[in-house]
Amino acid sequence: MRKTRLDTARIRAARRVIDPVFLDTPLYRCEALEPVLGCGVSIKLETANPVRSFKARGTEVVAGLLADSASRAAVCASAGNLGMALAWSGRDRGLDVTVVASRYATRAKLDRIRAWGAELELVDGDHETARERAAAIARHDSIRLVEDSLDIETCEGAATIGLELVDAAASFDTVLIALGGGALATGVGHVMKALAPGVEVICVQPSGAPALTLSWHRRRVVGTGPTDTIADGVAGRHPVPAVLDDLLLVADDAVLVQEASIIAGMRMLFDRAGLVVEPSAALGIAAVLEDRDRFAGRHVVTIVCGSNVDMDAYRRWVGAAPLHGS
Amino acid sequence: MRKTRLDTARIRAARRVIDPVFLDTPLYRCEALEPVLGCGVSIKLETANPVRSFKARGTEVVAGLLADSASRAAVCASAGNLGMALAWSGRDRGLDVTVVASRYATRAKLDRIRAWGAELELVDGDHETARERAAAIARHDSIRLVEDSLDIETCEGAATIGLELVDAAASFDTVLIALGGGALATGVGHVMKALAPGVEVICVQPSGAPALTLSWHRRRVVGTGPTDTIADGVAGRHPVPAVLDDLLLVADDAVLVQEASIIAGMRMLFDRAGLVVEPSAALGIAAVLEDRDRFAGRHVVTIVCGSNVDMDAYRRWVGAAPLHGS
Repeated sequence: MRKTRLDTARIRAARRVIDPVFLDTPLYRCEALEPVLGCGVSIKLETANPVRSFKARGTEVVAGLLADSASRAAVCASAGNLGMALAWSGRDRGLDVTVVASRYATRAKLDRIRAWGAELELVDGDHETARERAAAIARHDSIRLVEDSLDIETCEGAATIGLELVDAAASFDTVLIALGGGALATGVGHVMKALAPGVEVICVQPSGAPALTLSWHRRRVVGTGPTDTIADGVAGRHPVPAVLDDLLLVADDAVLVQEASIIAGMRMLFDRAGLVVEPSAALGIAAVLEDRDRFAGRHVVTIVCGSNVDMDAYRRWVGAAPLHGS
Repeated sequence: MRKTRLDTARIRAARRVIDPVFLDTPLYRCEALEPVLGCGVSIKLETANPVRSFKARGTEVVAGLLADSASRAAVCASAGNLGMALAWSGRDRGLDVTVVASRYATRAKLDRIRAWGAELELVDGDHETARERAAAIARHDSIRLVEDSLDIETCEGAATIGLELVDAAASFDTVLIALGGGALATGVGHVMKALAPGVEVICVQPSGAPALTLSWHRRRVVGTGPTDTIADGVAGRHPVPAVLDDLLLVADDAVLVQEASIIAGMRMLFDRAGLVVEPSAALGIAAVLEDRDRFAGRHVVTIVCGSNVDMDAYRRWVGAAPLHGS
């Protein structure tokens, strides 16, 4: 294949920098999901670690580099998984981490960012406002700005999941990957295309935050207006051109799913798999729910990428009343 | 120490028989639990596998032996984790498995036992009735009767969790272990006393099913009347003398906890750790909740041993309304 920004040898090297608590995560078949989904389903579980998402695979690589540098400081804009992961990795290595977040972000996540010793700066406005502020801090203080998906280390870290999928004895037809900024999709996609080219790579994004999916289909960057989805982990609207270029090389398809399907997916993972997941982690199941015929009889693996979710909202989504028949 | 029925070399050998999908489970610090519990808390997560409990570690050892034997058939009495695990391990090796269960058992568990190809025989009455029927089948058909905790393989399988705790870089003061029939407690306890004797081993049982705890304190087998607890996974009432002998050698303490604490523990693991757990898997957290002073400032590891739970009941326990302040 044409060359992405990623390199398999560098991804293998990344594994040696990442704290083992984030590596070799559970990968197992979940047969209780199969009768309702009509296909074989395996789960790659990225939630059973100190930060409850895959993001620390990337921040570990970033922090490993910074720990050997002169500045030993970093800033990022995040109201969630990236901020928590960078705070954790930074504390572990004695770095100064600043996280810029919207003051409307989920309190539990902000509490964790603070608890791990990061400087937390709250801004009025949305994630774009936070990004601008983080960039300004980085310029002013001459420190590392960590940008998810744009920064190659975040992609390389995420790509280590791909190595684990390839190394597994099990064989899959398809890997379903949540699509936000693109680090997870381009990282895992690169490894699959390099080492297991027979496996289909399908990216899944919410209809309410379709920027990168639309861009993939039109083969050029398409920006969108404000996003409208409960899947805050994947709600970007300004795709990065270099990331789109990589995604065009490694993704076999990119599909959009409805909010109702995301909720049904969360509920199914709760009821049938005993897994609490954040909305972005249910995108793969949602994709199967919306197109059972496409996946009928195949074996899919879905990356359950995070479980950081506002529990009040989660209780509403999975419902006080059980969903019979699902 | 005096010798238990267990042997560390045999436990190491057991690891080679067990399907890797059940081994090297996540072990991680869960800091979101620590402010409310007042101590360091790490989780050993035994739910992210095809059977959603640690029990397959034992049934894999049993099935590995049977696969090399003439009979290639086994029967057990179980309405839950043992039955599911034996069905899974048996299917994987082409064994004939029969599971005897009360017809009042949770439907989802019975469905899974059937789905994995085991013969399911339902009996009127409780677990004791099922045990008698399973023993009768074993005698009549001359096949292996698998008895949890009494059968050394079930203890050896569970004990592999202890090897993983000892091998972890992290250091703990205390390991909290759910106590039912005793396989998990004697298995893990043996390994801790043999390889990490400085770690305190505390067993936790519901007040409504206290037989083995009472027996441990009195140093002789004490039977009890009918059990009364939501923690069906640990609700035995006839301790096995040989298991008690082992437990007396490896446990530093055995404590009883109230049902309300078990529910509070499940709720806390749901709200703060994003983990769905069955009642027996919340016993360790319940023990800390009931005696914070004892654990203050220490670092405990609690084995989250299963997540097979009736979801209607679970929704009631973790509540439609969030538990503020926990």
